[in-house]
Amino acid sequence: MTSTVATRGPVRVVGTGLLGASVGLALTTRGVEVVLHDPSRTALALARDVGAGRPATPDDAPPALVVVAAPPDVTADVVLAELAAFPDAVVTDVASVKGSVLDELRAAGADLTRYVGSHPMAGRERSGPAAAVPELFVGRPWVVADSGTSSAAALLAVRALAVDLGAVPVDMEATAHDAAVAVVSHVPQVVSSLVASRLRDASDQALGLAGQGLRDVTRLASSDPALWTSILAANADAVRGVLRDLRGDLDVVIAALDRAAAATGPETVELGALAAIAQTVADGNAGAARIPGKHGGAPRTYEVVTALVPDTPGELARLLADVGDAGVNLEDLRLEHSAGRPVGMASMWVLPGRSEHLEAELSARGWRLVS
Amino acid sequence: MTSTVATRGPVRVVGTGLLGASVGLALTTRGVEVVLHDPSRTALALARDVGAGRPATPDDAPPALVVVAAPPDVTADVVLAELAAFPDAVVTDVASVKGSVLDELRAAGADLTRYVGSHPMAGRERSGPAAAVPELFVGRPWVVADSGTSSAAALLAVRALAVDLGAVPVDMEATAHDAAVAVVSHVPQVVSSLVASRLRDASDQALGLAGQGLRDVTRLASSDPALWTSILAANADAVRGVLRDLRGDLDVVIAALDRAAAATGPETVELGALAAIAQTVADGNAGAARIPGKHGGAPRTYEVVTALVPDTPGELARLLADVGDAGVNLEDLRLEHSAGRPVGMASMWVLPGRSEHLEAELSARGWRLVS
Repeated sequence: MTSTVATRGPVRVVGTGLLGASVGLALTTRGVEVVLHDPSRTALALARDVGAGRPATPDDAPPALVVVAAPPDVTADVVLAELAAFPDAVVTDVASVKGSVLDELRAAGADLTRYVGSHPMAGRERSGPAAAVPELFVGRPWVVADSGTSSAAALLAVRALAVDLGAVPVDMEATAHDAAVAVVSHVPQVVSSLVASRLRDASDQALGLAGQGLRDVTRLASSDPALWTSILAANADAVRGVLRDLRGDLDVVIAALDRAAAATGPETVELGALAAIAQTVADGNAGAARIPGKHGGAPRTYEVVTALVPDTPGELARLLADVGDAGVNLEDLRLEHSAGRPVGMASMWVLPGRSEHLEAELSARGWRLVS
Repeated sequence: MTSTVATRGPVRVVGTGLLGASVGLALTTRGVEVVLHDPSRTALALARDVGAGRPATPDDAPPALVVVAAPPDVTADVVLAELAAFPDAVVTDVASVKGSVLDELRAAGADLTRYVGSHPMAGRERSGPAAAVPELFVGRPWVVADSGTSSAAALLAVRALAVDLGAVPVDMEATAHDAAVAVVSHVPQVVSSLVASRLRDASDQALGLAGQGLRDVTRLASSDPALWTSILAANADAVRGVLRDLRGDLDVVIAALDRAAAATGPETVELGALAAIAQTVADGNAGAARIPGKHGGAPRTYEVVTALVPDTPGELARLLADVGDAGVNLEDLRLEHSAGRPVGMASMWVLPGRSEHLEAELSARGWRLVS
């Protein structure tokens, strides 16, 4: 973590939910003065109690920087009010959609030299000020969106905020940001919901066959409907574009399956139908291969070692202590559950060339390996 | 693991890929005689070399049980040949689709008293006999599909095989099995491919914003096109039914987004459009909540504790050793990567009521917590 901060206070945080309170808490922790405002007195008091700053008063010195952390649908209105109330302050917002906010500000004739949009790619399973933590932004991309006429000083202030909070600033124009989050975040959310939705009518017995694949695809489906309605509506244009393309691909698959279902056996399926299915899976291979690897680096192939772990306290720790003793670093680790058995599988991703050594070391220590 | 086995040898395994070789290896490990056959001499030799059994010869005693582990599109033909070649043997197959195999066997007038379909819900990221492991089936559901006229002895033999290999037998009729895997496995696979496919046209900068959600949804998309073409074509009827329903839901979302995109601001979006989006996410919540929890039990809510972990060997082990010292068992564990930073986040799922204790213990040991 940085020992000195570039952000100049006082910083005014408007909206003290998870993101706003975490910004306040992180800045306070680093010695920056933070004043808080929220229309909900409960949220405001909670944010104060977790150490995110002190409630704003009319006697406060004017802020150097205002951070608006409101729901997407009210963000533009709040930014407008803050720009008007504090004519010398830089104002940013952290809404997960940027284009519609900027459009509304432009339409209202806002002073866009002092406004910079931003979007920290951070979140948690819990929400609200009680879930605030100063480390929320550590290592995460933080999109900084020039309004088109943002001043150099305003851009610098927002980049400094991101860096002070441990995030990695990424310069991105509002439209490019919205197109990006549509494809890497909003569409995966919608599709995860659609797959999970199909489970409503499935039998209990069918659900008993669920494996890690289904759990992975549907993990996002537990998200908050109100929040996602607001996000998807605010980014409707970009999201529907990607969803329409996806629907086109889906239609190709369904048509191919129609032809396969009409066949009386594998040898009577039209070749074109099988080719269309294979192409869909291959296209998915190509897309998945483009997702960057750990630490934002290039995608890379890891080796996987899988061990059986009894489901009792300390067993997983003992396994990983043995991994540490073997001098091997884990690039990723996943636990898989076993249906009806008190045993789990720990899959450990290691750098190429390290799996053989790790397998030998773990076997020697009595671990049952699945690889 | 069981110390005695109920399966009576010799067992003949036809098809020595990952599944067949793992069956052979697991039985051999338990002292059951296994003979192997595969049209590929290389696959056969590899399976022998990993200890899955010995290659079959014309002089072998007739097998008591034949396990066919061939691709779905040739499974019925191989089962037919084995039923004919060994008139006293029970024959099973492990193909991931059951209805089309049974239909082909029926059409060919096979002796279905000696045939039982089965499907172990097990797999690995690697394939082929070299990836075979005796523990592959431990704790996994193993579907046992009565042909409708399977004899009690045949059903018993296949259930015994599942139990001997550490799996959990699940009785399920072929059509019900195919409907189940369509919704919990095949459709998630298709949809994962469709989402990943959209990434092909995304900018590098967009992909740089990818988080854990995208990685979860697209993890299945790296699967083998040839294998999945075979599986999807063989289960075309069930899969297209679920995909059509999903497309209907997708159409509703796209129509709602069209209406949201046409609005000039949040307050002018038709209420019905927002309600349709919210309903989609809520339906996903309801479906996701039906996925069984760990060990096949009822779904339950866990508490999550998240800690920052330096990305150096032994640190994760040290964290989990501290978790073990605190006397807390982890129900699940996930590592999240940080873009551009040598630090990860370990999210630990614990039983309700245990997170406060764990947080206090970890904080006292100097861990930086995100929750």
